[in-house]
Amino acid sequence: MLKDIDCTRKLGKEEYKEEINSLGLRLSEMQRTCKDENIPVSIIFEGWSAAGKGSRIRSLIRFLDPRGFEVFTIQRATEDERFRPYMWRFWQRIPANGRIHVFDRSWYQSLMLGHRKKEAALAAPVYDVKSFEKTLVDNGAVIIKLFLHVSKKEQEKRLSSLACDPETAWRVRKSDLKQNQKYKENLKRFERLLNETNHVASHWTVIEADDSRFADVKVYRTVLAAMENAVQAKRSKASSNSNNSANSSNAELPAIIGSSKLDEVDLSLTIERDEYNERLKAAQNELSRIHNAMYKQRLPAAMVFEGWDAAGKGGAIKRAVSPLDPRGYKVAPYGAPNDIEKVHHYLWRFWNEVPKAGHLTVFDRSWYGRVMVERVEGFCSADDWKRAFGEINDFEKQLVDSGIVLLKFWLHISPEEQLKRFELRTNTPEKTWKITDEDWRNRDKWDNYLEAVNEMLYRTSTDYSPWTIVEAVDKPFARIKVIETIKNRLETALNP
Amino acid sequence: MLKDIDCTRKLGKEEYKEEINSLGLRLSEMQRTCKDENIPVSIIFEGWSAAGKGSRIRSLIRFLDPRGFEVFTIQRATEDERFRPYMWRFWQRIPANGRIHVFDRSWYQSLMLGHRKKEAALAAPVYDVKSFEKTLVDNGAVIIKLFLHVSKKEQEKRLSSLACDPETAWRVRKSDLKQNQKYKENLKRFERLLNETNHVASHWTVIEADDSRFADVKVYRTVLAAMENAVQAKRSKASSNSNNSANSSNAELPAIIGSSKLDEVDLSLTIERDEYNERLKAAQNELSRIHNAMYKQRLPAAMVFEGWDAAGKGGAIKRAVSPLDPRGYKVAPYGAPNDIEKVHHYLWRFWNEVPKAGHLTVFDRSWYGRVMVERVEGFCSADDWKRAFGEINDFEKQLVDSGIVLLKFWLHISPEEQLKRFELRTNTPEKTWKITDEDWRNRDKWDNYLEAVNEMLYRTSTDYSPWTIVEAVDKPFARIKVIETIKNRLETALNP
Repeated sequence: MLKDIDCTRKLGKEEYKEEINSLGLRLSEMQRTCKDENIPVSIIFEGWSAAGKGSRIRSLIRFLDPRGFEVFTIQRATEDERFRPYMWRFWQRIPANGRIHVFDRSWYQSLMLGHRKKEAALAAPVYDVKSFEKTLVDNGAVIIKLFLHVSKKEQEKRLSSLACDPETAWRVRKSDLKQNQKYKENLKRFERLLNETNHVASHWTVIEADDSRFADVKVYRTVLAAMENAVQAKRSKASSNSNNSANSSNAELPAIIGSSKLDEVDLSLTIERDEYNERLKAAQNELSRIHNAMYKQRLPAAMVFEGWDAAGKGGAIKRAVSPLDPRGYKVAPYGAPNDIEKVHHYLWRFWNEVPKAGHLTVFDRSWYGRVMVERVEGFCSADDWKRAFGEINDFEKQLVDSGIVLLKFWLHISPEEQLKRFELRTNTPEKTWKITDEDWRNRDKWDNYLEAVNEMLYRTSTDYSPWTIVEAVDKPFARIKVIETIKNRLETALNP
Repeated sequence: MLKDIDCTRKLGKEEYKEEINSLGLRLSEMQRTCKDENIPVSIIFEGWSAAGKGSRIRSLIRFLDPRGFEVFTIQRATEDERFRPYMWRFWQRIPANGRIHVFDRSWYQSLMLGHRKKEAALAAPVYDVKSFEKTLVDNGAVIIKLFLHVSKKEQEKRLSSLACDPETAWRVRKSDLKQNQKYKENLKRFERLLNETNHVASHWTVIEADDSRFADVKVYRTVLAAMENAVQAKRSKASSNSNNSANSSNAELPAIIGSSKLDEVDLSLTIERDEYNERLKAAQNELSRIHNAMYKQRLPAAMVFEGWDAAGKGGAIKRAVSPLDPRGYKVAPYGAPNDIEKVHHYLWRFWNEVPKAGHLTVFDRSWYGRVMVERVEGFCSADDWKRAFGEINDFEKQLVDSGIVLLKFWLHISPEEQLKRFELRTNTPEKTWKITDEDWRNRDKWDNYLEAVNEMLYRTSTDYSPWTIVEAVDKPFARIKVIETIKNRLETALNP
């Protein structure tokens, strides 16, 4: 990819001027079109040291409306960032729909600069980067990846000219000089990295960057073409979608999903009051001790609570967290997405709450909304929720790989039990705030939800992140099962 | 305040149990009431080391719905936080309306722990803390400040019992032991600090904390009383407000505001094309150099652009930032607040974009919306916008005191010129996106806006943060005035 490229190609001044102005006008228009079409655009600049990333960025944004873009410089991870999965800080920086984010270095930074050996613990495996890009692109984003390529001679010239000027000398680091000395080895490394991370949905474009005019024009053209493609793709998709039903069911489902995993759950399980009190107290004491130990060992954990309305999520969460030091955990409740969340990738708001080392996040409802409420209510297309199973599995794999202990609970009750609880809530003044019209509406769609839940449990029970189904008609039984499961899983994680 | 308090007061076990359960139920109900009334509640725990802050917090939240509160532990400022005004990180953590934030240590941390001498640059002057609390409370928030007070003997006992247990020994620091040794001096220091920061709207409550049961009950009672007061105050205010017009004008305005400051602006000022090109280029070159120097010297700057619709803010901003390295500045555009912004104090979204050391933020519209569009359109009450002048002056003072260079531009045109530009936009296909129905509606209220702008210029032109009025009928003239003003102000700031 790199070695056959002639990075010394040039462009004349007059030709440049004319071309760049017409490209600039098109770019400025294209920014508005992407805004109207709600397309989020990420433009990343990687490449050799002193290849001119800063200058190319400055040139590129000249024609952009400053209210619609932002430039991010990616440096070494801060402590706060190192305490979380590698991709966390990039998820925080994805553009909202219709906005442009320009990255000076990116999620490739640690791979490109060869920090990987030193910072092994936080190096992004190529797989995570790919899965990150894939899920963004699949959900309508554009990612433009530019590699600025300069020749050994040109790089050397630039570095020494920077080093000679007292105003700029501070910008040249030892590692830059070393990169030039070992140009050949680095070339090979870059070559391999670009090949490994080159995929159809977000491929690399190499920019011949010895000549800044030539580089400028190629950057503009590449960016424009990618944005134009995205707009076309979105428009043609919109017109073809209008012929399809977003709720069309998938004929290729394995037979097992037809027969329900949940049908086999024994909802008659109960526990005696005395035993309940005893086991709850014991488990809470243990959990408090374990939580302290996790904090000291910097072990993070995440727990997902899903289940039918009125299945008792709140009560189970309360019993599990009440013995814990509140400085070490957070309950993150999720309802319908707000303005800001709506214009980002659906996983974004969950990434924001990924626990840092030594901390615990309890997700009260979660990313599984995508394959339950969004699916059943038609808030996303059938393509969207079908693709989501894989996206969710990838997301959870990243969490687990980064060292987070992940637990997922499905609290299960029967429709009859739910009705009883709804009626109790309606008739008890202190509880009426807990019941809404929406709860009743969801109840009418029990069978659709059941189908969705069964498929969810089937497709997202992985060996690294299995579901725990909790028999929840008897609330004490459910609470004991939840807290003891947490206790055992965390205990094992602490002392593997 | 402290020295006459008997911190050894006790409560029996039975009495405690009964009382705490009934208080807990009331608290849980009060949480829902505050949620319904959209009241944001901050509860801060300060006090001696080992006074039991963690345990009191854990007890307090037992009865709270975990979906409605969050606990924050305040430690030493991170680098990112040290690069901004002291109060920045606390503004980031203010609760949204209806939510409860519990702080284990708070904005008093550096004052309490005596870091002030060492970290002089970032110590919060008492004034900033007061002004922070005042503006939150004035805008409907509750701040409950608890100081946990233990006797010298009890503190010593606790510290040595912590130190003896290998599980907890790591929690005892040298500074804790020193605090106990110099108990008397510290008592005096705390006494003075509590007195200095005790004000009607957010006063301190000292919690006698030798006995944890006594302390618990007093914490509950204090919190409950404060929340109940806030709910009552809000309800009675709501009923009295419905009798007042929110737009009632203020009869006590100084005469000068009647005669308009803006009437005297000479809108006939122009500049020749050649001179424009030459001066623009020169200023841009200078500005680029200055921006680099600011980055190296870690000097931050903020620029506010306000003005009539179509006055040319966008064009002026573009000329000012285009020569700058995009990694060192950000343009933050502000329109109507979104969901999240709406449920926070109106200054919150601007605090989020306060520049860090060495960086520049351009505010395209700003906090002045409070005293312009919110005033004229009745989006806030008359009390709100009248109070806002002082709040804004305090806010800007904090920015300037922390070392930020602050510039404010009002771009002025005549109503006739605005009409010409609106018509041009309507009739030019590439420009129609720039004009909306709202622009026309705002135009109909020109006189109301003029009154608001005049009062704004009068009340918020301070010696530390004056307005620059820009004659903007001739766009080139306006752009040159803006960029040269920026250049001169930054130059002076760099070489005082």
